[in-house]
Parts: sequence; C-alpha cells; structure tokens
Amino acid sequence: MRVGKTTWQFNQPVYLQSTGTAVGPVEGEGPLGTNFDKVFESLYCDKENWELAERALMEEAVRISLEKVNMKPEDIDVMLAGDLLNQIVTSNYAARQLSIPFLGMFSACATVMEAVAVAAVLINSHYVSNALVAVSSHHSTAERQFRYPTEFGGQKPETASYTVTGSGAAVLSNQPSAIRVRQATIGQVVDMGVTNPLDMGSAMAPAAAKTLINHFKDTKRDPSYYDLIVTGDLSRVGSSILRKLVDDEGYTLGNNYEDCGIMIYHQEQPVFAGGSGAGCPAVVTFGYLMKEMERGIIKRLLVVATGALLSPLMIQQKETIPCIAHAVSFELEEDS
Amino acid sequence: MRVGKTTWQFNQPVYLQSTGTAVGPVEGEGPLGTNFDKVFESLYCDKENWELAERALMEEAVRISLEKVNMKPEDIDVMLAGDLLNQIVTSNYAARQLSIPFLGMFSACATVMEAVAVAAVLINSHYVSNALVAVSSHHSTAERQFRYPTEFGGQKPETASYTVTGSGAAVLSNQPSAIRVRQATIGQVVDMGVTNPLDMGSAMAPAAAKTLINHFKDTKRDPSYYDLIVTGDLSRVGSSILRKLVDDEGYTLGNNYEDCGIMIYHQEQPVFAGGSGAGCPAVVTFGYLMKEMERGIIKRLLVVATGALLSPLMIQQKETIPCIAHAVSFELEEDS
Repeated sequence: MRVGKTTWQFNQPVYLQSTGTAVGPVEGEGPLGTNFDKVFESLYCDKENWELAERALMEEAVRISLEKVNMKPEDIDVMLAGDLLNQIVTSNYAARQLSIPFLGMFSACATVMEAVAVAAVLINSHYVSNALVAVSSHHSTAERQFRYPTEFGGQKPETASYTVTGSGAAVLSNQPSAIRVRQATIGQVVDMGVTNPLDMGSAMAPAAAKTLINHFKDTKRDPSYYDLIVTGDLSRVGSSILRKLVDDEGYTLGNNYEDCGIMIYHQEQPVFAGGSGAGCPAVVTFGYLMKEMERGIIKRLLVVATGALLSPLMIQQKETIPCIAHAVSFELEEDS
Repeated sequence: MRVGKTTWQFNQPVYLQSTGTAVGPVEGEGPLGTNFDKVFESLYCDKENWELAERALMEEAVRISLEKVNMKPEDIDVMLAGDLLNQIVTSNYAARQLSIPFLGMFSACATVMEAVAVAAVLINSHYVSNALVAVSSHHSTAERQFRYPTEFGGQKPETASYTVTGSGAAVLSNQPSAIRVRQATIGQVVDMGVTNPLDMGSAMAPAAAKTLINHFKDTKRDPSYYDLIVTGDLSRVGSSILRKLVDDEGYTLGNNYEDCGIMIYHQEQPVFAGGSGAGCPAVVTFGYLMKEMERGIIKRLLVVATGALLSPLMIQQKETIPCIAHAVSFELEEDS
C-alpha cells in the first residue's frame, strides 16, 4: 500500500534472505574490510581490463549471495540490476550467464535502493516469490567513463569522491528471516544547478534531503525512529549540507546519521571527501549494516541511496547535474 | 499474480488512460505519419543539438499524454522512463521538470514494455493510482553514440536499421477506459554471439523468440489468440529469423505477426532493413496500435519490445551483443 504521496509500505512480509559482497583492495583495507565476503587484491580482479574486473565483482557477489542460501540461478524468479557503466553493461553481461527474467534499473548511485524497492513490490504482491538484486561500480571504469583516464594523473580537489570498487547482491524473498524490508520512498529528480563533476556531494544533498523529508512526512516519523539513517555517497562535503537542509525543514539528524561514503574508508586513505559509486551503499548495506542488524545492534535502519545522474556529454553541453535519492527501511522481524 | 515462470497477470484492472507521441520528419512521412500527435519538421526539433532535440520529443510526448486527460505532473504518482543515451539522460532531464517520483529503466529498445510492466504491477497492487511511462530515441543521437558521426557519411549494409526519431508516452491508471493491460512476460538476457552492430535484427531475434515462447507456454495460448502480435524493432532481417525460431518450437506466426520497425516506414524510404530504437515500439504502439484498439479493429494485442544491449565499449573489447525482449498484452475491456 501507499503511505502519503511517495512511500510504499510492504505489509506482506518481504525478507532479506542473503547478501553477497565483493570489493577491491582499497575497500578491503578500510574499516569495514573484514565484513566483505570477497576482497580482490588488485583493481584488475584477475581480469584483463577494468570493465571485465567490474563484471567479475558482480558475478562474485551474485554467486556468493546465492550460495549462502543454497540457491541456483534457476531458483530465482527475477533479477533487478544496474550499474554506472553506459548501457549498464556490467549488469547485462552478468545477467547473460544466469537466464533469469531481468529488469535493468538505472538511478546512478541510487540504483541499489530502486532495485530493492521494485523487488519488494513484486514479492509483496505475489508476482514473484524471490528476487535477486545486484549493483556495482569500479574506481577505474568510472574514472575512464566520467572524468579523465587514470593514466593522465590529473589533480583533484578535496570535494572529489573516490568511486568504490565493489558489488553488492542480495536475495529477497517471502521466506521468513531476521530482517524485513518495510518501506520505500521513491525519489524525484532534483537539480540545484551544480555543474562540477568533482563535487557530487553538493549536487546530491538536496535530492537526499527531499527524499528524507518526504519519508518523514509520509510515515509521520522523525529521525529518532531509526537506530541508524545512512546516505549512500554524499561523503564529507554533501553530508554536512544534508544535515543543514533537513534541519531547515524542522528535522534534526543526530548521532544516528552516517554516510556510507565516509564509513567505508579510513580518513587517512587517499579518497578525498570519501567514497561514492553505486557499489558504495550496496556493499556497506549488504556487507556491514545487515550484519549489524543480524547482531541486533541496529533494529531499524533507513538507507537513502543517493545518485548524481551525471553525464559527461551533458556537462560538455553546459548542463547542470540532476540528482535523485531512493530510501528503503529495514527492520528486525521481532521489532516490526 | 504470476502465471507460469515468467509472466505476470494483472487481475485488478490496469487501464491505458492516454498516450502522447512526438516524432521526427522521416517518421511523419511514413505510413503511420498521420497517427502521431506531433511531427517535427526537422531532426533538430527546433533545438540546438541532437540531444536537446531528443529531450524535446520526450517532453512533448509527456505534455500531450497529460493534456489529453487534463492531468498535471503533480497528479501523477510515479514516472517510469528510459532511453538509449548513456545514463538515460533524456529521461532524467525530462523528469527534472516534473517533480514526480521517478524510476529509471533500461532494457535498450525493449525499455517501453519493461516500464509498462512495472507500472502495471504498481497500479494493480495499489502502490499507485496512476503512472506515466515515457521512452525515446533519436536517429542522430544514436548514430553519434553507438556508431559513427553522421558527418562521416559511412556506408551501411542492408542489414542495418534506422533509429526512429520519436518519443512515446502513456498514462496508465486504475480508472476505467477501453484498453486494459493484461499480462507481461519478462525477458531474459540472450546472447547468440552476434558482434555486428549493423545487424541487430539477427542479434535480437533469439531473445524475442525466447520471450514469445515463454509467453505462450506460461499462458497456455498459441499465436492465434491474438489479433496482432508485433515485435519492436527486428526489422526485415530479424523478423524472418523470428518466424523460423518460433516455428521450430511448434508455434506458427501467421498473418497476425508484424514488426513495428517495418510498419513505421515505407519500403522505399532510405531506412535499410527498417526502423529500430526505443522510440520505435513506443510510437507505433501508443500512436497507432492503441488507436486501432479504440476503433475495435484490434481486440487482443501482444507487443514484444526487443532490445539489443549494445555497448560500443564492449564491441571494442570484442564482446558479443546480449539482447532482451519484454512482452505486454493489451485487450479491449469488453473482451477481457
């Protein structure tokens, strides 16, 4: 059912069945490193080029998520996936191996929660019994596509973020488990006129604020309802802007607010303002936060995945960067 | 509810409320020209460059579809859109004007029926009362991105297709109208090893056959159930391969099978094997076939939108072209 204008509530239980995460070496060295299922030692992930490396990450995350619940691809009713590469090629080529009905999704770095939201709708409404969700990003495929070749060695400002090399996959189903998907608040495209692809946190913060405030209004909650609220990849610059924007609307984000892009790296790692990329909220949520929920440390979690709908061609045509954010709430079954 | 393995059936009524179509000059001169709501006289659509022209097409199609039912953007509960440009920028920037909860979709030229399928799920399950669907393609943005700059004047083989310049939009809702959305069969990614981006009909035919056969098996129907079955953009080369592949599985496509890519142009227009592009099945379905249904000439229609998940980067890396097809059935309310 719908709650308010933009929030979908899943009254039939939709459960998180298992997760799989695969990351690169920089994420493996970060504070959450031991939480990820697979850490590749090289950015190449044992492949010939960056794009094949990113595909290997997604294939590995998917394989692990299925293996944990003893499922084969043919047991899955639908796959929803997306990534940052043009034509979402990582997802298309990963799906090619699996022969599962496939829905391609794109909300840039917010894709993971778009996919979880649509998967939850399909399960809640009995169109499918289970769904496989997967997203990915890779530092070097993203640099090549969106900015400069890494060989160019261009300098970056401190507002820049570092694209997470990683893929997160999850199996959702109607079979009972500890963690329920409870609600999804679907974002609108918001563009406040930022044109700098090296400051995406500032570009995305207003879209995140819009979705958060819509979520609180729709559900008649305030931030204190959640043990933890995380944004996807606002990083240090964007997350402080978000606090201010949400505060201006009368909601205060306290110590229960964090950003996946800050959580995933040590401050001394060379990542500028923090992590970003579609893989960032996916590996932090599926690799770390879901384990914190299973341990009972987090009972109610809201993940606001944030996406800059950045296009190099549009930037060259002097356009600004539209952004979007999709939020999904997870609750412990005992609590919901 | 689900029917068989890959088909979703909409038992709560989901209706087609209105459509809007905007096309370029070549489509306007084609046999369906008078059916489109807006025909631009130039490929530039009164804009400065091809990408802005494509955006103008989608904005116009959306505007017309809303105007026909006296709706404003704020009356719409969710927008689902996609296009062929990297990062689906046409859709993102069109959505920026509208402030509607937005789900970005990508199945290449099959996107329109992915969007209709997910929209129908959302309406059928009461998450939304209505949904706006929009897709687009543009001959010159597609040539620039996927093949060669048009200024290069490269020769093309007869297997090539001509990307449709056009956008189709539709408003779906739970409010009664003449046409119901009945079922959706979600496609799998199929790759038979074709590597030639100038022969996408051959690449896509196996994916279309897979979805069609799944649809017939899931619904226990044969092709004669439908007054018309159309594929999206297999064109002359691919549609004859499809007939053969489906025949091999024991189903015969008779005179009730056509391809939108063949229907949209006169044979003497300079379009090689026919039309293609995300806009192709969208403008033919929303601009022409829905009117044929309203006139009672078609009572049961199956649209199999076909997509080549083509990536120039993957082709350069010697990869083959994965493909997908999503099918949606439409029936007259009196008949269903």
